[in-house]
Amino acid sequence: MTEAKVWTAALVVIGDEILSGRTQDRNVAQVATWLNEQGIRLAEVRIVPDDSARIGEAVNAVRALYDYVFTTGGIGPTHDDITVDSIAAAFGVPVVEHPQARSALEDHYRGRSGGLTPARLRMARVPEGADLIPNPTSGAPGIRIGNVFIMAGVPHIAASMLEGLTGRLEGGRPMVSVTVGAHVPESEVAELLKEVQDAHPGVSIGSYPFYRDGQFGADFVIRSEDGQLANQCAEALRKRLADADVEVVDAS
Amino acid sequence: MTEAKVWTAALVVIGDEILSGRTQDRNVAQVATWLNEQGIRLAEVRIVPDDSARIGEAVNAVRALYDYVFTTGGIGPTHDDITVDSIAAAFGVPVVEHPQARSALEDHYRGRSGGLTPARLRMARVPEGADLIPNPTSGAPGIRIGNVFIMAGVPHIAASMLEGLTGRLEGGRPMVSVTVGAHVPESEVAELLKEVQDAHPGVSIGSYPFYRDGQFGADFVIRSEDGQLANQCAEALRKRLADADVEVVDAS
Repeated sequence: MTEAKVWTAALVVIGDEILSGRTQDRNVAQVATWLNEQGIRLAEVRIVPDDSARIGEAVNAVRALYDYVFTTGGIGPTHDDITVDSIAAAFGVPVVEHPQARSALEDHYRGRSGGLTPARLRMARVPEGADLIPNPTSGAPGIRIGNVFIMAGVPHIAASMLEGLTGRLEGGRPMVSVTVGAHVPESEVAELLKEVQDAHPGVSIGSYPFYRDGQFGADFVIRSEDGQLANQCAEALRKRLADADVEVVDAS
Repeated sequence: MTEAKVWTAALVVIGDEILSGRTQDRNVAQVATWLNEQGIRLAEVRIVPDDSARIGEAVNAVRALYDYVFTTGGIGPTHDDITVDSIAAAFGVPVVEHPQARSALEDHYRGRSGGLTPARLRMARVPEGADLIPNPTSGAPGIRIGNVFIMAGVPHIAASMLEGLTGRLEGGRPMVSVTVGAHVPESEVAELLKEVQDAHPGVSIGSYPFYRDGQFGADFVIRSEDGQLANQCAEALRKRLADADVEVVDAS
């Protein structure tokens, strides 16, 4: 197997509402899942407050480290939506009005109450040199500048922007994941797990305890970019568990 | 009002299962909420993979920046539990067996299937110089070294460790949050919101669109360490919304 490039991404979640505990984040899991389908590995997440300097520091740090950076949050029409300005400052470019974004907003708000107000027009502002990410859900598009993709924080709008990017980013092979569950405390099979792990280079085995339907157990998640390797490892693990009289169950 | 110290914390979430999208994180919201009750502000979250160097880099970066650091994940009995070793390496200290942790595990596993196996005994390993965080839920305690608090990834076990720390960390005033909801697109009241924000220094107003019970709207969240200021601002906002014929609703 040749060493193929592993494509990586970071996600910067922007929002006081996540850091205060008020809002349960949904974007980490959704972006992670989508990235994996594109053959890109989510390698780091940073969650930062609505603070221009902190947003800029985080984006500048991760855009130098990974192939792609995604951000969620802070691109709406209100005063607390400061992501575009913060990222423009981080890139050292001015904020400009994007003509296509303006035109999309004009179409979207035509005939609606209030029309295209100055607040709504804020959503046409982009860092100079940026392109748009189409967004069929609402008038406001996402924004791409360099390797940074700026998306909405509302999960279904972020999902719509991801949909607009599907298949358009260069990536490698998706990570294949096979789960073997068992009604056993993970500590009872830790040695066995380690032996199976050591015997299967190119895969990683994670162990995740669960409590389901009144029973304790653990899911063993086998991950590899090589599906055949992952399946061979899962087979070996099932056999070792069966030999140890451990009941293997369907994964959740 | 005198300028009181703002106590800050970072959370480092450790786990491939979060970055792969397999597991929905629950610890960010729970740690954030608990910290706020202690008068400590969650200022940043980093989510990193099960990789010793990456864990060490993240912990070393944030422990220099914030008063407290919490980590979740990677302290169980299996081969993929590498948090203790990684943080010990980050501090430049060896890993040692903590006698009280060993004794807690001996008590916990006495009479249980398998007893205190070598894998289970792994959970008594701590960075040299560390103290324990009591954990009534399971035998394995959390660990404190310097300003870093090492906790389990399973949310109810992490909750139990937080419970063990309640009231024991120095903090400032809790952040007070008042929410005013309205059945209005946030873009229609953006200008009004900004005026209320500008008229109320010492509070921050966040605007969060929602779709509930078949109706669109937005929650305006007013946050301040001064509860009186937050309430005054909420009152002013309610009045401005009523003057603009906007229906104010109970917050979720």
